[in-house]
Amino acid sequence: MRRIAFLLVSLAAMIGVAASMAPASGNADEEAAPWVKEKPAGYRDWKWVSSAHEAGKLNSLGAVLGNDVAIKAYRAGTIPFPDGTIIAALHYTHAPSAENDKIFGQPQSFVPGSPTNVQFMVKDSKKYAATGGWGFGHFNADGKTVDAAFMKPCFPCHQQNKTHDLVFTTYAP
Amino acid sequence: MRRIAFLLVSLAAMIGVAASMAPASGNADEEAAPWVKEKPAGYRDWKWVSSAHEAGKLNSLGAVLGNDVAIKAYRAGTIPFPDGTIIAALHYTHAPSAENDKIFGQPQSFVPGSPTNVQFMVKDSKKYAATGGWGFGHFNADGKTVDAAFMKPCFPCHQQNKTHDLVFTTYAP
Repeated sequence: MRRIAFLLVSLAAMIGVAASMAPASGNADEEAAPWVKEKPAGYRDWKWVSSAHEAGKLNSLGAVLGNDVAIKAYRAGTIPFPDGTIIAALHYTHAPSAENDKIFGQPQSFVPGSPTNVQFMVKDSKKYAATGGWGFGHFNADGKTVDAAFMKPCFPCHQQNKTHDLVFTTYAP
Repeated sequence: MRRIAFLLVSLAAMIGVAASMAPASGNADEEAAPWVKEKPAGYRDWKWVSSAHEAGKLNSLGAVLGNDVAIKAYRAGTIPFPDGTIIAALHYTHAPSAENDKIFGQPQSFVPGSPTNVQFMVKDSKKYAATGGWGFGHFNADGKTVDAAFMKPCFPCHQQNKTHDLVFTTYAP
């Protein structure tokens, strides 16, 4: 749906009908969003913070990983997280494992299926001062980020968890 | 149930009624089991292989981590896994997150609850030659291992997955 909308807007821009409506680098929406547009390097090598299962429409199974700054803060219980913290959430479909179920003798085993997206929270108290010091990133399975409108709900939602510095995931011991 | 059985056996041993029934270091059962009795050091710092959700009676949410030998083999698709591979499975209860559900506005979010156990597979093709080169470890939340009888089903069950060198968990990209 978002992709279709984006294509339509792009098409309009190309034919010159409504060029001013197309999302363009540097417009007001984009500047306002605490949007991380580059995927942080090496995140697949980071340490494990926790796992997460979202049922319902999200139907997601994944893991949250943290860079060394994040892990140190998590283990010490440091709130707010210090600048340099990066937290990555790797999401996949919540997929039944036919192979495991066969061995267990009943349907019970769920594993990460297709990758859906990777999300990031990046702490930089100066750069993202307006949003509690956090920048937010979202990259679909194709590695591409989304648009400013998609990123806008990140902060208002995370802001509801002020006691844990806007971070939902806690550390699994 | 297992704990109750173990206590009963221990009690019997103490009062000298059935000392020969108590699990004792070096008996035949114990020698036969490919049983890893020491928790490998530093496993909580290892890289993430995948997450796992077991529904039903297990009601478990957790993660599988691998040491460097394991991760290298996983990423290269090396089968069989080389000697030195250690794979850790960290298990917790599959617990609803009231905090997340409140923000989502519906019950959908599950996170690791109380730790239940940590299991290990250790590859040593000489030491564990009789069991496909794998030793198996199980440590309850209190850090203590179990008994030989508890460990006996590990190999016969894992043996059913010969195509992936007895390892159920695959690597999440």
